[in-house]
Amino acid sequence: MSMDRLIEGILKTQNPTVAGLDPKLSYIPEHIKAECFQKYGKTLDGAAAALLAFNRGLIDALCDIVPAVKPQCAYYEMYGWQGMKALHDTIAYAREKGMFVITDGKRNDIGSTMEAYATAHLGKVDVEGELQIPFDGDCLTVNGYLGSDGIVPLLNICKEQDKGIFVLVKTSNPSSGELQNLKLEGGDTVYLTMGKKCEQWGESTMGKYGYSGVGAVVGATYPQQLGELRSALKTTFFLVPGYGAQGGGADDVLPAFDEKGLGAVINSSRGIMCAYQKRGLPGEDFAKAAREEAIRMRDEIVGKLGKIG
Amino acid sequence: MSMDRLIEGILKTQNPTVAGLDPKLSYIPEHIKAECFQKYGKTLDGAAAALLAFNRGLIDALCDIVPAVKPQCAYYEMYGWQGMKALHDTIAYAREKGMFVITDGKRNDIGSTMEAYATAHLGKVDVEGELQIPFDGDCLTVNGYLGSDGIVPLLNICKEQDKGIFVLVKTSNPSSGELQNLKLEGGDTVYLTMGKKCEQWGESTMGKYGYSGVGAVVGATYPQQLGELRSALKTTFFLVPGYGAQGGGADDVLPAFDEKGLGAVINSSRGIMCAYQKRGLPGEDFAKAAREEAIRMRDEIVGKLGKIG
Repeated sequence: MSMDRLIEGILKTQNPTVAGLDPKLSYIPEHIKAECFQKYGKTLDGAAAALLAFNRGLIDALCDIVPAVKPQCAYYEMYGWQGMKALHDTIAYAREKGMFVITDGKRNDIGSTMEAYATAHLGKVDVEGELQIPFDGDCLTVNGYLGSDGIVPLLNICKEQDKGIFVLVKTSNPSSGELQNLKLEGGDTVYLTMGKKCEQWGESTMGKYGYSGVGAVVGATYPQQLGELRSALKTTFFLVPGYGAQGGGADDVLPAFDEKGLGAVINSSRGIMCAYQKRGLPGEDFAKAAREEAIRMRDEIVGKLGKIG
Repeated sequence: MSMDRLIEGILKTQNPTVAGLDPKLSYIPEHIKAECFQKYGKTLDGAAAALLAFNRGLIDALCDIVPAVKPQCAYYEMYGWQGMKALHDTIAYAREKGMFVITDGKRNDIGSTMEAYATAHLGKVDVEGELQIPFDGDCLTVNGYLGSDGIVPLLNICKEQDKGIFVLVKTSNPSSGELQNLKLEGGDTVYLTMGKKCEQWGESTMGKYGYSGVGAVVGATYPQQLGELRSALKTTFFLVPGYGAQGGGADDVLPAFDEKGLGAVINSSRGIMCAYQKRGLPGEDFAKAAREEAIRMRDEIVGKLGKIG
């Protein structure tokens, strides 16, 4: 199952982190933009070319020390179908470099429509007998508000094609509690109810490290709930956003891990992508600065966590 | 606000329905596919060309009698960025023909990422000072599981650019109740809680017909909840899927409307797209059959509803 490949990447690099690839134009160094806009104009094609060039530089700088990347679909869709082509090319390049790709799309729908999303992001599509590959991530983030009809269509593709999903459980944003923290009549919160569903959905996709192909998104900004969910959900791997820019620190993410230092992968997006800006370095140093920040983050977390595995 | 334009389309056509454009290859007539595959091969480009040709035929057949179309993103993403280009071209063609476009993406995220989705599907993106248009729908369906941080970033774009959103409240699928029907400690269900949030979110985007720019998705398959929500949510316009193929009939959708016959738009996807297949007609008749089914559906609903407005 797919989480096994992610876990093996974490064990090999001794690094339980994932680099978010959310390439806003304002994050991209001037020299990259200048070249792309000169070639394609200030168009969607030009923007998409800049996104891809930036991502390739980041992937080159990170691929031997960070096991995974997480491109956020919104920042590609924002540049139209040209941006979606940059998403495709980014995923292909990251996988070519041996990285595990978590496509952050938070997709959700039902039945055959959800199957279409599964095919789009994790599978192969049948074009009159020829199998074609639309986007080809390893994992997709999904939203479970629609219930099992929105999740079950994904499980077959996870099994057949060794892919996985992360379901939103307790998100990192300030207002996540408006719905997710509400208490149901039985006493459980909405987020715990969703978490328990992940355990059920995952049963048929159990991997060799004790984690299923159905993971959960749980924010670093709520360390108490991270710990509560880690105890309650023994077979659900966590994708943890909210470290760094959103305010979560190394101490906050520790409750996400099990006693072997497994069970979670911590995301940093802006922290890594914009490291050169934060340090006031020239744009030409973006890749070097990203690598240094990724190492700093790894060392900070692993320093508290100890050897993984 | 955006629902005003949808409502004006409904008043003008005296037709409170929307045609879903969910173009699976198996729905597309052979003669269209043959031409596209001959030109582009059995590739994603070939599939995307077939999607667009089919949609253009449907739009031509429907644009004077049906006020809106609802392309489902999943069926375009399934054919990669080439499919997303077909989505872009479909939206542009429908708007050129005067139709209101509801992009069914069920997108969700927080803060600046949600703004990116809003820009992608409803707005214009700034490429180094040049404004470019990514997808340009009139409305976007969204999932509110993340709370206000996922919805508020959309409201400005709705106000500034006269666009709207539909938030998932009570979906049409069999398992929608797993989470949505659960009762909270205060006694409200999860779906009613989400519905009440739509009323709040909509307050700043009220239109001249008494409906805000924040609508709700409520399935035709749950007529009792439709009525309950119509009574509780006075300013929230409903997008109602589940008519036809999913089992909802004209009687089931009546509770969605207010006393003027406004307040809801009823979707049919397969019923219209696949009308020629259902009647055993040759593929060449797909547009004519779609038009006849759209008229039948309109007459069935309006026959019970009476004059609208």
